[in-house]
Amino acid sequence: MKLIKNSAGRLVPNEVNGVPQTPFMGVGKYRPSGAQAAPPIRSCADYPPDGDKRIASLKAALEKCGLRDGMTISSHHHFRNGDLLMVPVFEAAAQLGVKELRWFPSAAFPCHEPLIEHMKKGTISWVEGSLNGPLGRFASYGGMNGMAVLRSHGGRWQAVQDGEVHIDIAVLAAPTADSFGNATGDRGPSACGLLGFGLADSLYADRSIVVTDNLVPFPCVPWQIMGQNIDYVVELDRIGDPQKIVSGTTRLTKSPDRLLIAELTARFVQAAGIMREGFSFQAGAGGTALAFAIYLKELMLKAGVKARFIRGGSTKYLVEMLEAGLTDYILDGQTFDLEGVRSMRENPGHINTSPFTSYNYHGKGNFAGMVDVVVLGATEVDVNFNANVATHSDGVLLHGIGGWQNCLFANCTILPIPAFRNRIPIIVDEVTTLCGPGELIDVIVTERGIAINPRREDLIAATKGSGLPIRPIEEIKAEVDALVGGPPDKPELSEEVVGVVKWVDGTVLDSIFRVNNN
Amino acid sequence: MKLIKNSAGRLVPNEVNGVPQTPFMGVGKYRPSGAQAAPPIRSCADYPPDGDKRIASLKAALEKCGLRDGMTISSHHHFRNGDLLMVPVFEAAAQLGVKELRWFPSAAFPCHEPLIEHMKKGTISWVEGSLNGPLGRFASYGGMNGMAVLRSHGGRWQAVQDGEVHIDIAVLAAPTADSFGNATGDRGPSACGLLGFGLADSLYADRSIVVTDNLVPFPCVPWQIMGQNIDYVVELDRIGDPQKIVSGTTRLTKSPDRLLIAELTARFVQAAGIMREGFSFQAGAGGTALAFAIYLKELMLKAGVKARFIRGGSTKYLVEMLEAGLTDYILDGQTFDLEGVRSMRENPGHINTSPFTSYNYHGKGNFAGMVDVVVLGATEVDVNFNANVATHSDGVLLHGIGGWQNCLFANCTILPIPAFRNRIPIIVDEVTTLCGPGELIDVIVTERGIAINPRREDLIAATKGSGLPIRPIEEIKAEVDALVGGPPDKPELSEEVVGVVKWVDGTVLDSIFRVNNN
Repeated sequence: MKLIKNSAGRLVPNEVNGVPQTPFMGVGKYRPSGAQAAPPIRSCADYPPDGDKRIASLKAALEKCGLRDGMTISSHHHFRNGDLLMVPVFEAAAQLGVKELRWFPSAAFPCHEPLIEHMKKGTISWVEGSLNGPLGRFASYGGMNGMAVLRSHGGRWQAVQDGEVHIDIAVLAAPTADSFGNATGDRGPSACGLLGFGLADSLYADRSIVVTDNLVPFPCVPWQIMGQNIDYVVELDRIGDPQKIVSGTTRLTKSPDRLLIAELTARFVQAAGIMREGFSFQAGAGGTALAFAIYLKELMLKAGVKARFIRGGSTKYLVEMLEAGLTDYILDGQTFDLEGVRSMRENPGHINTSPFTSYNYHGKGNFAGMVDVVVLGATEVDVNFNANVATHSDGVLLHGIGGWQNCLFANCTILPIPAFRNRIPIIVDEVTTLCGPGELIDVIVTERGIAINPRREDLIAATKGSGLPIRPIEEIKAEVDALVGGPPDKPELSEEVVGVVKWVDGTVLDSIFRVNNN
Repeated sequence: MKLIKNSAGRLVPNEVNGVPQTPFMGVGKYRPSGAQAAPPIRSCADYPPDGDKRIASLKAALEKCGLRDGMTISSHHHFRNGDLLMVPVFEAAAQLGVKELRWFPSAAFPCHEPLIEHMKKGTISWVEGSLNGPLGRFASYGGMNGMAVLRSHGGRWQAVQDGEVHIDIAVLAAPTADSFGNATGDRGPSACGLLGFGLADSLYADRSIVVTDNLVPFPCVPWQIMGQNIDYVVELDRIGDPQKIVSGTTRLTKSPDRLLIAELTARFVQAAGIMREGFSFQAGAGGTALAFAIYLKELMLKAGVKARFIRGGSTKYLVEMLEAGLTDYILDGQTFDLEGVRSMRENPGHINTSPFTSYNYHGKGNFAGMVDVVVLGATEVDVNFNANVATHSDGVLLHGIGGWQNCLFANCTILPIPAFRNRIPIIVDEVTTLCGPGELIDVIVTERGIAINPRREDLIAATKGSGLPIRPIEEIKAEVDALVGGPPDKPELSEEVVGVVKWVDGTVLDSIFRVNNN
């Protein structure tokens, strides 16, 4: 393994967990070749004639799936911090005496902290997926026996589809399912909305297990996951706590600064001419993004403008807009609150999407590029509009990438961010970790002004004379640095790579270096 | 190429159109190995950033898809005899001077008779798909430059999924679509219900073209076909005549004999204890099967029994049952009339299925095996309950297999058939063409009595004392033969194989021999 400089000027390893890598070549530059991953051909002759695939326990199902050392087990994160399934799954694997597993979740949350023990004991070698909180910190300090690989939602689909990650066994939490393995997330006592983050797993894994706490007679409708892709069905008392879907990121901000930022963002969208009849937008689940949606709604009502579609993560704020007739559709990738779950079940205009439809860069197009404006968060932005969403300025990995990278392909990408957090400036000379190339990031909105990427002459022209506080990014940076006494210290990092950030095309965009213990 | 005897005792070629074949080994005996077909990896970088994939004409789209000699072009048959697309497609191919194409439709109908000229001129070498009417006759008399390959709906999915048939270009008629290629069959002036027969094509073809006469703003919802699998979108004035979906097979019988057969079938289902709360059934689109559904409905109403699901081909008769609350769901694979189309659009319990969900034998199970009773047609049945659905007793190929073979996996398969047609007995010593092995066919219902397969001791026991005219199949046969003056003449067939019948697992079940010209 050696480090090479990629086209963004970042040092990245040429090999990750034993797999050769292509360094990032620039946006849209890398062209894939070859064929997609091809799952084994199965035969109905090997499945129960009456379609009943139930099996007594997680342990029995893992055994039947042929679990053995070194395999990859995958899961989805629609329960976010309310997942009750994956800790028992690895308990069962440990009881079976299996070692060196790779866990390939679509994301890990603080509720998965007990799995650190399984990493220490060797049941799990490393976790490959978005690492939120404790598992990210553990990886940052060099705790894993393998590199963290951060992928966007679309990048995870791409990696599975392209055969970069082979899933041996997918374990899919299903709020409602039938004994054939048809499954849905939109109903049942643990309803979490949808199951799109587990869809690729069901399609490409060698073996797939559906785990439910709400078995219904065949057919389970809708079948967000199809029983034709499932090997076994396990019933548990409880698979997740839907109340905990509402994680920290999905609460509306109360900070006056952030409310100002949200309002400026909405006004910018209107001033730039984006908010017109039939337009579309996506706002993330962060508190500021939610506040933006509320301000935009007011502006839409005032102007009598209706959207064609809004992309979710859905929340009650988006549902209100759908139900008030302010949009024809919500195209939803994950529900962030229980109103989103209800709406998905009840509203024909609230549409279930997956990382394939929305984000996969190695398809014949995807939805992300058709969105007029997207509003996202960031931990750092540099003066060239490059942004970081995974690590903090101290270098510690604390957040997953989610759909963030994929969304950058919208017609206009806006990052509404505070100019500083805990007296640490957010606009920096160079981001600690590069997650999004500046050429795809168009506007930064802070409480001290709005910076437009010089590449977007159209936006600069459209908002001239709008009365909005539009300023060069360097000017905002200088003002903030002066206020807090200079730019932040560079973090103390070792030269050991503990993780990589993949770009949407599977190339390596940046490295995450081990944080020195102190 | 040589002929070998398969496990059903039929002579079948070891090679078809240059591809080596496995002879039928018995139901559930053949086990596939290896991996599924793997489409090429694409990149969003090669598709329009705004998602607009429209192109001016069929010809331009075919050129952009790289059409050249020897390629395979596929299509679906949801318009049945009302298709207006595929003749212009091959006209365009002829204008481009391309030769030796293989047309791989899910089925061909009399409306495709003009393509015989393209076969004579060499634009098309052969048609691989269900051949209804003139194209079947043309093949029977040795007119094609390749063998006809008859597959069930599930067998077609299996062949594409397993890489047995590689589709170069899929051309998909879409009653409603957006410029990204999302498409649906359930709405628009040419609405035909669903597009499931084109789903495998969109997933596995190298290139896919959506052709529509009703373009809507993105997103086209529902997206029965996903734009992420589509390369180009073409607009035409008119792609199909939905009135002609109602082909000859989907009219209710008025024959007193057939009405009697339908009534006996319904009474048998009740007497055998199959018609119980939460049961399921499927009835084909033939006139007798439709009448069966009506009789069964009366029995269900009288007994206060509700079905969990009915499998369609949907018709107004099934829709009436859904809307009257006699079933929770219609799981539909194709709409046979416009009431079916309306219901699919309007009723949340009217569910879109595909050959993958319903019929693919090389999946982890499918729906066909979970159906309690299926009622199907046949052109011939022999005394061992083997059945023919493709050729007539004169050896001429006139019908596709449809979902018929796949449906045989239901818990109880009943063939309600007249004892003779045009003075030709239907129960024979040996079927002209074997389409369904007798071990999967449980009951034959004729106007002269009901014959139960001796393997089904459970059904024999359950219907004992029911008062139904249950008789040995040999006895019914002898009675009919005596009436019409002996069994029918064997057809005059050459030793030249002009087609094969595939079993659901891709093995070769039987050969279709050239009919001698007279």
